[in-house]
Amino acid sequence: MALPANHLTDLVLASHILANEGVLDSFGHVSMRHPDRADRFYLSRARAPALVETGDIIEFDLGSEPVAPTGHRVFAERVIHGCIYRARPDVMAVCHHHAPSILPFCVTPVALEPVFHLGATMGETVPVWDSHDEFGDTNLLVANEAQGDSLARALGGNWTVLMRRHGVTVAARGLREAVFRSIYGARNAEVQSRAMLLGPVTPLTLGERRAAGEFNLSPIALDRAWEQWAHDAGPVA
Amino acid sequence: MALPANHLTDLVLASHILANEGVLDSFGHVSMRHPDRADRFYLSRARAPALVETGDIIEFDLGSEPVAPTGHRVFAERVIHGCIYRARPDVMAVCHHHAPSILPFCVTPVALEPVFHLGATMGETVPVWDSHDEFGDTNLLVANEAQGDSLARALGGNWTVLMRRHGVTVAARGLREAVFRSIYGARNAEVQSRAMLLGPVTPLTLGERRAAGEFNLSPIALDRAWEQWAHDAGPVA
Amino acid sequence: MALPANHLTDLVLASHILANEGVLDSFGHVSMRHPDRADRFYLSRARAPALVETGDIIEFDLGSEPVAPTGHRVFAERVIHGCIYRARPDVMAVCHHHAPSILPFCVTPVALEPVFHLGATMGETVPVWDSHDEFGDTNLLVANEAQGDSLARALGGNWTVLMRRHGVTVAARGLREAVFRSIYGARNAEVQSRAMLLGPVTPLTLGERRAAGEFNLSPIALDRAWEQWAHDAGPVA
Amino acid sequence: MALPANHLTDLVLASHILANEGVLDSFGHVSMRHPDRADRFYLSRARAPALVETGDIIEFDLGSEPVAPTGHRVFAERVIHGCIYRARPDVMAVCHHHAPSILPFCVTPVALEPVFHLGATMGETVPVWDSHDEFGDTNLLVANEAQGDSLARALGGNWTVLMRRHGVTVAARGLREAVFRSIYGARNAEVQSRAMLLGPVTPLTLGERRAAGEFNLSPIALDRAWEQWAHDAGPVA
Repeated sequence: MALPANHLTDLVLASHILANEGVLDSFGHVSMRHPDRADRFYLSRARAPALVETGDIIEFDLGSEPVAPTGHRVFAERVIHGCIYRARPDVMAVCHHHAPSILPFCVTPVALEPVFHLGATMGETVPVWDSHDEFGDTNLLVANEAQGDSLARALGGNWTVLMRRHGVTVAARGLREAVFRSIYGARNAEVQSRAMLLGPVTPLTLGERRAAGEFNLSPIALDRAWEQWAHDAGPVA
Repeated sequence: MALPANHLTDLVLASHILANEGVLDSFGHVSMRHPDRADRFYLSRARAPALVETGDIIEFDLGSEPVAPTGHRVFAERVIHGCIYRARPDVMAVCHHHAPSILPFCVTPVALEPVFHLGATMGETVPVWDSHDEFGDTNLLVANEAQGDSLARALGGNWTVLMRRHGVTVAARGLREAVFRSIYGARNAEVQSRAMLLGPVTPLTLGERRAAGEFNLSPIALDRAWEQWAHDAGPVA
Repeated sequence: MALPANHLTDLVLASHILANEGVLDSFGHVSMRHPDRADRFYLSRARAPALVETGDIIEFDLGSEPVAPTGHRVFAERVIHGCIYRARPDVMAVCHHHAPSILPFCVTPVALEPVFHLGATMGETVPVWDSHDEFGDTNLLVANEAQGDSLARALGGNWTVLMRRHGVTVAARGLREAVFRSIYGARNAEVQSRAMLLGPVTPLTLGERRAAGEFNLSPIALDRAWEQWAHDAGPVA
Repeated sequence: MALPANHLTDLVLASHILANEGVLDSFGHVSMRHPDRADRFYLSRARAPALVETGDIIEFDLGSEPVAPTGHRVFAERVIHGCIYRARPDVMAVCHHHAPSILPFCVTPVALEPVFHLGATMGETVPVWDSHDEFGDTNLLVANEAQGDSLARALGGNWTVLMRRHGVTVAARGLREAVFRSIYGARNAEVQSRAMLLGPVTPLTLGERRAAGEFNLSPIALDRAWEQWAHDAGPVA
């Protein structure tokens, strides 16, 4: 089932934006669920996010297999997306990344917490998953459904989950929200880690996390940022 | 009452400069008061600062309401500007931002202080405002006049006020001064936070703050920096 | 014996990529061994890596001398390459650099260790060489075969060796692998040093280093990154 | 006495290079002494370094006054240059800057020391000058000959002098050397400050400082870096 053209362009643009804003480098990926068909999601072939084109987008079922045969190489980690879409009917977009500002929180016991209003878009709480707990020594990729399901369980009802010695996965109710959560989650990590060097950090109260998270994920904020990021990333070919 | 064309262009350019220098990202905003009519100020519609055009500038009264009906979305936080212009007749321009180097000082108890001569343009002392003290759990935006007036009281007779878990607001006697104070305030924060990791920091003496602040806000310094920043930001369409 | 044209272009491109990704500045260099003739390697004349052209590539024997007379200035440190190729028949490419994120590990006793999956491409262990131990006060360059052999001994069977107060040398089984190890080694150093400021760091287990190192040096990963880096560096003239 | 055209172009290029490499922002300046006439030096009118053109260069005597009347505004801090040229006949170029990596060493008691081979180009020892010691509360600028002479005394026979709460001044035997010392001094400061966060730092031995400083200021190194920096800065109009 084809993804409508405007969504296809938006998905490619999201990939370019996340690369241009420094959240994705040659690795990591962003996907979206079909707006009308809950058992399908869309993700590029295995390619660096900055270079993805509309012709690179592949349709997957929730078992993370391509719906039609493809001659292209697919991401080993496509199960991150499929397993989260299966576990969380409310999730419409997923981004998996290794932003440099987030990684320090993946290798130390420090909790990642919203410390400024835009950081509240990560969600109220950021749980942590360690592949070693259940799967022992691996190459650290989430490469099969058992691992994907385990990660989805760790995410639970939250929106961001840290992955020990690896990176982070972000879930959202829409594509722009996934991009926004990913970018401002990374920026929050940067602020928090810099602040921790100065003195004791006072994060947002729970009430502030809820109110600021909600406001900053409204179209008022999402669209303002998206317009700029899209401008900066340039047009989709 | 229309803003003269040269001022209009300067206001748009100030917005572009602050974005290009990394002080503003998709959020934050800069305004100016009408040079001849003290009860009017000018601020863009709700749009990312890097993308603002002259047609986006809206005239506001000191109650922070558009003087004429506008079909555009306006900033919730326009009250920051209106309330400061009302409280401080000497203020002719205001910038509200969330520069990454400033934010660590918004979430730790460390005082932001001028540590090098150009940083003295922040003002001698930088007070701190916490919306939670008076308004409890909010989304952290300054979204009504009660909050704007509270922030203006915290600013007092100073030029820069930190906003806990949110950002900073800078007041100035002119637009170029607002831009200069914002940029070198952010750079001072960067230097101070890096220096604190090395050892005890010795900030400027009070006498140095006064003398260096004054000199660096003279046209000699303001115009030199503005010429370069304007060049780097590119022409206003 | 001429290097086939596609290899020549790749070697120049590798130099441009390493400069464009911030691993090399005006100094440092990358070389490759002839794919069919083990006693020859290829390295540019003494020139900043970003500016190297195909006509700058010179053929060297394993004594690090040009095979044919050249009117060009050659790197004093070409012995780094020759001595490692001589000591390690499995090494097909070498990069010597001074990436800013690596240097702090060259001047403190902290061990550089893989802390995220892509960092495992540095190799399981990163030994350290101090020219002062054997050669006393020098200008810190590896400028003769005695020094080059000493460095090669310190490298041993590993893939990355830190050089005290100087930089790092990276060996690899191919050119793309050398580029990948160099770039992600530098990024790992950045993550590790940032993480150390937050709290105790838990690096990869030995089993994870092996599995992640192997996977991330497979063509699946190497080619994906190379496509983007080559795109970003631009075409070789 | 006119500066030969090739020197004039080089001086403008040096200014652009130092801006492009992040050592100079809108402030700071670089000068050179006339190669054949020791009582004359050349410095731009008061303008941001990135924008300086050949027509902006003014000839000064060692009293730091323009040799011919000029309609242009001149730098208050031109005395830094004149006083050092007067005190140090071996100095042929001077750069005064406020690089962000250097400033933390200007506001803490930590000594700036060469920690990697290229950093040795700062000179063996970096003394510190505090304008407050002799002149009390000022705007921190070096604005008269008494202050310039005091700074020159603090520099003594060294090549780099830190200025408390202000910046740094670099002297050199030639223009390319001044540029090289300034850029790698700033990079050394970056490495040293990052390394200090990881553990105890072991700087170069005195013998290494001498040998590495000498080698890296030979034309072999200076010309290699200059070629790249000039390429990156673009042609002088």
